[in-house]
Amino acid sequence: MTATGLLDEIDGVGRDRGRGGYSRHAFDAAEGELRTWFAERAQRLGLAVETDRNANIWAWWGTPGPDAVVTGSHLDSVPGGGAFDGPLGVVSALDAVEIMQCKGFRPVKPFAVVVFAEEEGGRFGVPCLGSRLLTGAIDADRARSLKDPDGVTLAEAAAKAGHDPERFGADPESLARIGQFIELHVEQGRGLIDLGSPVAVGSTIIAHGRWRFAFSGQGNHAGATLIGDRHDPMLPAAEVVAAARRLARATGDGRATIGRLVPNPGGTNAIASTVELWLDARIPGDDRTRTLVAELSGLAKEAADAEGCLVEIAEESYSDTVTFDPALRDRLSGWLGGVPELPTGAGHDAGILAAHVPTGMLYVRNPTGISHAPEEFAEDEDVDLGAKGLAKVLEHLST
Amino acid sequence: MTATGLLDEIDGVGRDRGRGGYSRHAFDAAEGELRTWFAERAQRLGLAVETDRNANIWAWWGTPGPDAVVTGSHLDSVPGGGAFDGPLGVVSALDAVEIMQCKGFRPVKPFAVVVFAEEEGGRFGVPCLGSRLLTGAIDADRARSLKDPDGVTLAEAAAKAGHDPERFGADPESLARIGQFIELHVEQGRGLIDLGSPVAVGSTIIAHGRWRFAFSGQGNHAGATLIGDRHDPMLPAAEVVAAARRLARATGDGRATIGRLVPNPGGTNAIASTVELWLDARIPGDDRTRTLVAELSGLAKEAADAEGCLVEIAEESYSDTVTFDPALRDRLSGWLGGVPELPTGAGHDAGILAAHVPTGMLYVRNPTGISHAPEEFAEDEDVDLGAKGLAKVLEHLST
Repeated sequence: MTATGLLDEIDGVGRDRGRGGYSRHAFDAAEGELRTWFAERAQRLGLAVETDRNANIWAWWGTPGPDAVVTGSHLDSVPGGGAFDGPLGVVSALDAVEIMQCKGFRPVKPFAVVVFAEEEGGRFGVPCLGSRLLTGAIDADRARSLKDPDGVTLAEAAAKAGHDPERFGADPESLARIGQFIELHVEQGRGLIDLGSPVAVGSTIIAHGRWRFAFSGQGNHAGATLIGDRHDPMLPAAEVVAAARRLARATGDGRATIGRLVPNPGGTNAIASTVELWLDARIPGDDRTRTLVAELSGLAKEAADAEGCLVEIAEESYSDTVTFDPALRDRLSGWLGGVPELPTGAGHDAGILAAHVPTGMLYVRNPTGISHAPEEFAEDEDVDLGAKGLAKVLEHLST
Repeated sequence: MTATGLLDEIDGVGRDRGRGGYSRHAFDAAEGELRTWFAERAQRLGLAVETDRNANIWAWWGTPGPDAVVTGSHLDSVPGGGAFDGPLGVVSALDAVEIMQCKGFRPVKPFAVVVFAEEEGGRFGVPCLGSRLLTGAIDADRARSLKDPDGVTLAEAAAKAGHDPERFGADPESLARIGQFIELHVEQGRGLIDLGSPVAVGSTIIAHGRWRFAFSGQGNHAGATLIGDRHDPMLPAAEVVAAARRLARATGDGRATIGRLVPNPGGTNAIASTVELWLDARIPGDDRTRTLVAELSGLAKEAADAEGCLVEIAEESYSDTVTFDPALRDRLSGWLGGVPELPTGAGHDAGILAAHVPTGMLYVRNPTGISHAPEEFAEDEDVDLGAKGLAKVLEHLST
C-alpha cells in the first residue's frame, strides 16, 4: 500500500474534536491503536515486529543484526497536531519496503523500520523520549517519574499500556545494531516552498530546549482583594511571555514560544495561586539558547519579586546543535538527483541518534508552511515522491 | 446541630486534590451530594423541602406564602475554593432555625431557608445563575446554552442531574413569596480584621462583571516558525494581563483580574492557535467598570492587530452597584448591638435579589483576609456568633 493509502487508513484515529487535528499521546488509546496498526501492516510485509525495552517498535526485514540500515519516525502527535508530523516517516518507510520488495530487491545489510515512542513530549514533556532513553540521553529514573498534566507518571502510563517501565533505560544492544539511520519527515516551515522543491536533505537542527517556569503567589478573591494587596502570579507570567518575544526578536534568528500556560485554580473570580508556563527556545549556534534563557530567567525573577511572588525555573530538556553526517548528506542528495539541503528549527529522533551513528533526514514539502497544527499538509504527489526517494536511498544504503 | 458541626459534616465533600481546597460545581457529584445532605438536614428540622424551576432549593418552616422571611446562600464553590464561601450562610441558616426552635419560637410570617444554584459561575461562567434566572435577570435560552469547560451545556448538565431545563426562567411566583432576604456570608477580604469586629452588616456591593476575550491567531511549530512569521495569540493575551493591572491601578480603587486563561492547543512546542481569557473587573461607582473594560478592549484590539491576530470580546455578566436597603441595614445593626457596616467587592445572590425585595447581608470575620482559595477561614467562635446573630435578626423579622 502506498504512503498516502496508509495515511488514509489512520485518518480517523485520535482526532481531537476540542482542539482540532489529532491528539495521539504516548500510551493513550489512540497511540495504542496506531501501534497495533503498524505491527499488522509491517507483518503483512513479512517484517518481524518487536518492542524494545523503551517501548520503541522495531520491524525487521530479515535477521536483526549489527550495521543495520534503519528508517522510521514516530506516531505520537502534539496536542491538536497535524496528520503528517511523525506518521509520514512511518508510512513512507512501509511504502519504501513494499517498493523494494515489488522490484525483487532484498537488502544485503540488516534492515529495520522503527517507531520511536513519545517523540513530541506531548504527554510527558520531554521530547524524543524513546530515542533519549535508548541512547542513554535521559536518566531512566527521571524519565519514569515524568508526569502528564493529570499527574500520571510515565511509569504508570507505560505499565498500564503493557510495557515494563523497570526495563526503561540505555539500551546499548539495540543501539549497537543501528549502522545508519534515515528519518523522513514532513517539512515544518516554509523551507521547501521557498526552495521550490518537493524533497530536501536535512543539514542541521538548531539548538533547542524546554524550560518550566513555575510562579507561585497567593490565591485570593478577585473582588475583595485590593490591587496593592495582591501577589498574582499571572502578572510575572505575562511579563515572561512579552519578554520572551522581545529577547527572541533581538537575537535576529532565535525563536521563543510560550504555548502552554496553566493558571491554578483557574477560576474567573479568583486570583491564581500558581501559574506554570513552558518556554520553548531555539537559537542557531551553541550557547545562545541558554544565554537567552538565563536572561529571561533573570527578568522572571525580577517580575516575580515585584509582585511578591516566587518563581522556580527548571530545564526539562536541551539539545545542542546537530549537524547531520556531511558525507551521508552528499550521498543522499546525489542519489535523489541533487535535491537541496535544508536546516530546521524542529527537533527529531534523528537529532538524538546523530550523536551515535551516521544519520540523515529527508524532508517532504509542506505547502502551508504550518506544522504542529491541523493545517499541516503534504500533497499526495509529494508524499509519493518522498516514499520513492526514501526507497531509493535505502536500497543504496542496504546494498 | 451548630453551624460548625454542620460544616464538619460536609468537610470531606468535593475536595480538589489537584488544586487544593474544594471544587463543588453546579450539577456535579459533589454539589449533588451537598443538595441531598441539605435536604436531609432541613427535613430533620421539620422543614418542607422543594426545588424550584431553576434548581434553587427551598426549605419551608410552616406554610409557604407571601411576605416570607428568607435566608440562605449557596453550596457551590469556585474551582479550588474554601470551605466557607456559600456553605457558611447555609449552615448558619439551619443553625438559626434550630436556635429559634429550641427556644420555642415560631415565626408569624412564612419562613424559608434557600440554597441558590451556581452562585460562583464556577462551571458555567455566569455568577448568581440561580437567582438571576429566578428574577429574570438572565434570559433562559442564553442560560441553557452556557457551556462548561468541557463543552457540556447547562441544559445537558441540569437534565443529567434530574432537573428540567425547559422550565428554567423567570419565576415570578417564587419571587413574589419573598418578603425580605437575609444572606450571611464569610467576609472575603480584610474588612472585619481591620474593623476588629466578628460580624458586620453589608452596605454595598461594588459594580462588577466578567468579560471573555477570545484571541485567535495561527497555530504553528515553535521551532520552524520565525518570529516575523508568527501570529501568536499569547502575545496580545499577555498584553491584556499587564494592561488590566495598569488600568485598575490607575483607578485607585478598582480591581481587574485574569485568573482564567486557556491557550489552545496548549502544547509546549506549538504556537497557540487561540487563547481565551476571562477578565473579572470591579470598580466602585457606576460606569467606571465598563469604562475600564472599554479602554482595555481597545488595547486588546491594538495588541491583537499588531500580532496579526483577531480578538472577540463578550460581556458574560454585569451587575451595577448594589446598595442594600438602608432601613433594613439600620435595623440589622441595631438588633446586633451596633455592629459596623461594610462594603464589599464580592458579588452575592443578595445583590441580585436587592433589586426586587428588601435585602440585607451579614458578614462573618475571615482572619486570613483570603477567599476563593483554601486559606479562607472563620474561627468557630465567630461562626457561632454569626449564627446566633442571624437567629436574632430572623426572629425579629419574622415576628
